[in-house]
Amino acid sequence: MRPFALKSALTNVRTASPIVHCITNYVTVNDCANALLACGASPIMSDEPADVADITSICSSLVLNIGTLNERSIEGMRVAGAKAAELSHPIVLDPVGAGASALRTETACQLLDSLPIAVVRGNMSEVKALAGASSSTRGVDVNPDDAVTDDNLAQSAAFACELAAKTGSVIAITGAIDIIADASCAYAVRNGSALMGKITGAGCMLSCLAGAFAAANPECPLEAAVACVAFEGLAGQKAAQRMKAHDGNASFRTYLIDALCTLTGDDLEAGALVERVL
Amino acid sequence: MRPFALKSALTNVRTASPIVHCITNYVTVNDCANALLACGASPIMSDEPADVADITSICSSLVLNIGTLNERSIEGMRVAGAKAAELSHPIVLDPVGAGASALRTETACQLLDSLPIAVVRGNMSEVKALAGASSSTRGVDVNPDDAVTDDNLAQSAAFACELAAKTGSVIAITGAIDIIADASCAYAVRNGSALMGKITGAGCMLSCLAGAFAAANPECPLEAAVACVAFEGLAGQKAAQRMKAHDGNASFRTYLIDALCTLTGDDLEAGALVERVL
Amino acid sequence: MRPFALKSALTNVRTASPIVHCITNYVTVNDCANALLACGASPIMSDEPADVADITSICSSLVLNIGTLNERSIEGMRVAGAKAAELSHPIVLDPVGAGASALRTETACQLLDSLPIAVVRGNMSEVKALAGASSSTRGVDVNPDDAVTDDNLAQSAAFACELAAKTGSVIAITGAIDIIADASCAYAVRNGSALMGKITGAGCMLSCLAGAFAAANPECPLEAAVACVAFEGLAGQKAAQRMKAHDGNASFRTYLIDALCTLTGDDLEAGALVERVL
Repeated sequence: MRPFALKSALTNVRTASPIVHCITNYVTVNDCANALLACGASPIMSDEPADVADITSICSSLVLNIGTLNERSIEGMRVAGAKAAELSHPIVLDPVGAGASALRTETACQLLDSLPIAVVRGNMSEVKALAGASSSTRGVDVNPDDAVTDDNLAQSAAFACELAAKTGSVIAITGAIDIIADASCAYAVRNGSALMGKITGAGCMLSCLAGAFAAANPECPLEAAVACVAFEGLAGQKAAQRMKAHDGNASFRTYLIDALCTLTGDDLEAGALVERVL
Repeated sequence: MRPFALKSALTNVRTASPIVHCITNYVTVNDCANALLACGASPIMSDEPADVADITSICSSLVLNIGTLNERSIEGMRVAGAKAAELSHPIVLDPVGAGASALRTETACQLLDSLPIAVVRGNMSEVKALAGASSSTRGVDVNPDDAVTDDNLAQSAAFACELAAKTGSVIAITGAIDIIADASCAYAVRNGSALMGKITGAGCMLSCLAGAFAAANPECPLEAAVACVAFEGLAGQKAAQRMKAHDGNASFRTYLIDALCTLTGDDLEAGALVERVL
Repeated sequence: MRPFALKSALTNVRTASPIVHCITNYVTVNDCANALLACGASPIMSDEPADVADITSICSSLVLNIGTLNERSIEGMRVAGAKAAELSHPIVLDPVGAGASALRTETACQLLDSLPIAVVRGNMSEVKALAGASSSTRGVDVNPDDAVTDDNLAQSAAFACELAAKTGSVIAITGAIDIIADASCAYAVRNGSALMGKITGAGCMLSCLAGAFAAANPECPLEAAVACVAFEGLAGQKAAQRMKAHDGNASFRTYLIDALCTLTGDDLEAGALVERVL
């Protein structure tokens, strides 16, 4: 990863200020909107099937997050996805809870099969469920058995490359160590803070940011996804440094979005912990 | 605008503590509820057609925000609107994203045509879309070409008065300069902070506050709307003053709602930047 | 109440880290998720009838909150409730706005009648509506006439015990003085802060926490509910102590969730204001 690519990926988001159409869960949607604004993009949420095609048409990318899916929003995802595909907008899929219910697994797989997904962003349990690898999840959290560690890093990266080759998507598997891969190479990112697991929404926000980075960096989707993952991870580190007496996860949430707002391209270049694995 | 009217408009909200029925989008709904509590009112959210008539009956005003409209909530808006009209409760319409999709434009126009809307609160692109003036929006943000400036202030105010005359509503168009008009006169408000555009929800919160101010000030709807717009704008200024190193848009969001909570009638009277334009 | 029971109730939540399935309103859902994470539990939200049985199956308890109920989510509550009953998972019912609309009252009563509800958590107006006692609510707020005071404490406790006997549920009625009762005894809790009424979500968060405490303390449901109510109340007191110049309800919200994160079992044991009433 050439350092300047990370910096320019963020600069491009702030210059282009892409509008990102999000069909996302109602748990973390406010954080997703503020995270997009923080990074310089602009959010619009719409999930009604009769509304989504028009909305996607005025946007630059589409994020599909199945965190609180329902029959109507699934149909909205299909309609919006078809329109985004027609317009060649990058589509990000966040398979929240895939593996935890049949409906989630099937919906995520169907979206992945039927749409030209640019980026899949999930934890390892969710991505394994998508890949048809047997896995059991711990709700919306990763199964500890699935965690990426130094011991299984090469193997995990190979799994991500394989799925990328099969789907044509960039695969971003996030956890203590993040893996981002396309069919031919894989990076590990070691930014982040354990506190990110103590708030809801770190993953959902990242998927929305991935929509902004993909829209603003159409010529280097893998590098854009790596930059995006390092960017939120670094924001998590900066947020953790602000924690003071009596602060808990609610303050951390505020600090995390604040950091997405204040981190510069130079900060990202200096602080990103990226290494090529494959 | 007589200064004491602004102060009393806020005092009336805090004295009456009106319950405001909100059918609003799920992106900013939590901020809307906390903003209403901050200003001294009480929120209740309900969008199910089978629930809304009962709920509206125990409230003092109704806010209709189409930010994440769907078939069910549109029907809920119609049923609630009819009941509010029957009970002569003031109704606020926030046409989020009108002009950005056919469904949004049509829904907003239908609500405006069929209900006795007391206040329309939107950005200029949205309000132009409502008025049938050709406009293109930038998603849920105003099209820069539509921004109210000193150069087009008189013309913008005339447009607002005209629409107010046609609809019978107070028209509140918010942006860097806000315009609030009824059929016979228009005010400009120059409070506010550019940071309000870096968070989601400043407009949605304002529409909910407008519901509280309209309910508590039934005899002067125009002055109530002016006071409300100046109130949130002043809160934005106060919030901006609290920004310190490392703070970003998430901290600003907290400070903004805090300021709605702590601003007094005297602060409003002293800080409001209101001028009559027409 | 033996003091160590309070401490161990919290410790058990942090040790077991139960996954709590929440079907809850979209107003406060983000706070509910962060509150569960703060106390050491893990949230998952799902309300689609086709999704909820699978989700409930991987969880340890279920929380049903009717704050923004709709036809689909009511059906989701029924399906999830039936599955939770089959698996003997504790179910918490939060009858938000019962008494304020026919749909809310009927839905809450139906859920209470048809499911083995472990804990009912509401304000006195809501619980009276559930009990069929005539009551009028002030929207989602308690009717001041219904407030529990020192004068009516014994009578209120007797009412709670009676309803507990009739339903088989622990009844937790929260307000300035909280009452928690089963069929044979009732406790009053005097923790809390008046500021908790200036934010949205204190009640919703408490109901979700009750789901976590019930799951982690299956052998003492009454003590678990008492510990949970004292825990949030104490967090409110700690949050109130952090309030500084310019802080309003938004800062209080952050401090409250922070305190849920940082309070220890020893803090709870030392600070809980619990007395047996009946």
